[in-house]
Amino acid sequence: MNALEDLVSSLSRLPGLGKKSARRIAYHLLKCDQNLSDGIARQISDLKARIHSCQVCGNYTERPICEVCTQLGRDKQTICVVEQAQDIGVIENSHEYNGLYHVLQGVLAPLDGIGPEKLNIATLVQRVRANQIEELIIATNPTLEGDTTALYLKKLFEADQVKVTRLALGLPVGGDLEYADRLTLARSLRARTSM
Amino acid sequence: MNALEDLVSSLSRLPGLGKKSARRIAYHLLKCDQNLSDGIARQISDLKARIHSCQVCGNYTERPICEVCTQLGRDKQTICVVEQAQDIGVIENSHEYNGLYHVLQGVLAPLDGIGPEKLNIATLVQRVRANQIEELIIATNPTLEGDTTALYLKKLFEADQVKVTRLALGLPVGGDLEYADRLTLARSLRARTSM
Repeated sequence: MNALEDLVSSLSRLPGLGKKSARRIAYHLLKCDQNLSDGIARQISDLKARIHSCQVCGNYTERPICEVCTQLGRDKQTICVVEQAQDIGVIENSHEYNGLYHVLQGVLAPLDGIGPEKLNIATLVQRVRANQIEELIIATNPTLEGDTTALYLKKLFEADQVKVTRLALGLPVGGDLEYADRLTLARSLRARTSM
Repeated sequence: MNALEDLVSSLSRLPGLGKKSARRIAYHLLKCDQNLSDGIARQISDLKARIHSCQVCGNYTERPICEVCTQLGRDKQTICVVEQAQDIGVIENSHEYNGLYHVLQGVLAPLDGIGPEKLNIATLVQRVRANQIEELIIATNPTLEGDTTALYLKKLFEADQVKVTRLALGLPVGGDLEYADRLTLARSLRARTSM
């Protein structure tokens, strides 16, 4: 093993990179401008030191409280509950949501021993009750665990004034009926809307 | 821009990585074991200092002369000519070749002002003549530039004793006639072999 193979082997442990794409990147780093490769090396080693979780919602940030929580003009009565901090970026990119977020840091998975106490649920309850939140949009993934977590949260807030909603399921925009899976099609039929 | 966005933007300049995959990798680096991320950062910054070109063939190596050139049991009378050092790994992986290599560091591209004097051709001539090379396998890419370069080399060594060959063109193994492009199919018909 040499320096090149060491890097290829490390890079191929990253998500979405196989041996071939890792090798392509390593060769590129070897040939590219020194500033780019040095920059990436420095940015990677700085990352963990500079980025941490927002004290309020759990979003990634360099400040104690994140950009979303401190931004003026946000709807402070709505909280969108996501599994992981990276989901916030995805929802922000839709430009369809203007409320706050709450990161659970996972989903309920009783078989893996992940119960409510291992997720950021206590802080969510506190936020909902302290701030008179009006709507809680559960944006966990449409998986078994995501659905279970959504259901758990729905029950948890049953006695509160907060309205609990969930992201709609259905066909992806630009998708093709032919390629839609059976379950998605079934959910999309059940949730059909009048025109 | 924060540390996370800086890294995403640098990573998305690497080959094969779009914004989405760069973001996925950055989030992974943020959450993964500190040893992995520190290791990658160190390996990237070490890379250029440790890896350079083999003095004989131009392969990437940490030593003055590369592993292939110094390996015992190699057929020292055959040289496979490739465009770039990374092509050597691809050919080595086929386990079909046991000779030496020569890296041109590019291909002839008169329109871009890349003539023979910009490639490692003088050193190739020297190697062929000094070592009584028997066969020169031209493994440039099957593109216009690769073909031009192959033709140029063929002419260059016309007066020498060396046999000049080129990688076969044809259908990829496991491929489907239906998806083969017109040119590949034409080449593969022209070069049909008797069974």
